[in-house]
Amino acid sequence: MKKAVILLSGGLDSATCLAMAKEKGFDNYALSFDYGQRHKYELQSAQSVANTLKVSEHKTIQIDLRSFGGSALTDQIDVPKDVDIDSKDIPITYVPARNTIFLSLALAWAEVLKSGDIFIGVNAMDYSGYPDCRPEYIEAFQNMANLATKSGVEQSQKLTIHTPLIDLTKSEIIQKGMTLGVDYSQTHSCYDPLELGQACGHCDSCQLRLKGFQEAGFIDPLQY
Amino acid sequence: MKKAVILLSGGLDSATCLAMAKEKGFDNYALSFDYGQRHKYELQSAQSVANTLKVSEHKTIQIDLRSFGGSALTDQIDVPKDVDIDSKDIPITYVPARNTIFLSLALAWAEVLKSGDIFIGVNAMDYSGYPDCRPEYIEAFQNMANLATKSGVEQSQKLTIHTPLIDLTKSEIIQKGMTLGVDYSQTHSCYDPLELGQACGHCDSCQLRLKGFQEAGFIDPLQY
Repeated sequence: MKKAVILLSGGLDSATCLAMAKEKGFDNYALSFDYGQRHKYELQSAQSVANTLKVSEHKTIQIDLRSFGGSALTDQIDVPKDVDIDSKDIPITYVPARNTIFLSLALAWAEVLKSGDIFIGVNAMDYSGYPDCRPEYIEAFQNMANLATKSGVEQSQKLTIHTPLIDLTKSEIIQKGMTLGVDYSQTHSCYDPLELGQACGHCDSCQLRLKGFQEAGFIDPLQY
Repeated sequence: MKKAVILLSGGLDSATCLAMAKEKGFDNYALSFDYGQRHKYELQSAQSVANTLKVSEHKTIQIDLRSFGGSALTDQIDVPKDVDIDSKDIPITYVPARNTIFLSLALAWAEVLKSGDIFIGVNAMDYSGYPDCRPEYIEAFQNMANLATKSGVEQSQKLTIHTPLIDLTKSEIIQKGMTLGVDYSQTHSCYDPLELGQACGHCDSCQLRLKGFQEAGFIDPLQY
């Protein structure tokens, strides 16, 4: 079995992405980040999802992005509520260079594992308009990654960034996950959870999730 | 003054690179990493260099690359001594994806600072053959970075990765630094320091440094 590194936040998208990597027959190594996010509850979800989907190893790396700030997820900035989720503006929940940082660390682990496959659950349909979720960004990262490493230089291992969700709507992602048996009660999407981790239901991530479940014809198992 | 983020390891190259950014008139923000490196002494040097060259801010980010390992600098692997420094092989001191990780974090800080300028002291002449020091890698990172961020999408800020040392020999770097008043007694290059931080004189980094000083016609102020 080919090894793959899967970025696993604990949210709906990355859980589905991991299930899809498993379906493709990869031996999965899940990577999560304790980056000072407001919704640190997602890390418990990542652990549960990793266990249920039987990854070979799950690492959580600490990296304090609050030292840079500049986002409602990592700084003293309120998470906007009940905003227009169809807006094309990049919202204040965007974390500067987050996917680049996460993919760079995935690249390091992939190289050590001698893996040429990284999965990331980015999605360019129903998403928050983040620049580092777009296909042209992912392609540029892959080009760079193939020049960055020892295996890239020796051409012993071509690195592929897999984005199986990129062209799916949130509803399609949920439908796909349901066919693969993803337990969405284990996942956490809310950016601004209440005490005990309950989802707020009003941030853009909750809104996109609720809309997705509604369109997919399923009941979201989370409490709001 | 334009702000710039400078990757500052505490070594000879990055100290010179910072002095060159200062010479170009940038307002400098220095970024160092406590990544589990064997030669953690370099972080004291980074602090001294940052103070002497009067940066506006110096951050040291913790990120434990020992959790991935795979290098003599971050794993239970001996640092090779007295090896052929002209060899074209990538040595075991190569840290998987290190410059990609460091540049990604520099990109995050640059975005928050609204800076479009990152300096990195990579060098493709007298270096250890690391893949992530080559010009084609730096160019690919810059292309990716210009798609990764909010300012990239809005085209409000073009990001440039500056590599002022890339075509210089180690001797030329030292000569340049001496004209700019870099105090090389503050820098640390050794990968495998003895107790109290004294340089070993035999790892490839020490060998490249000693050869550089000799060719430049200066005495290395460090004790070996």
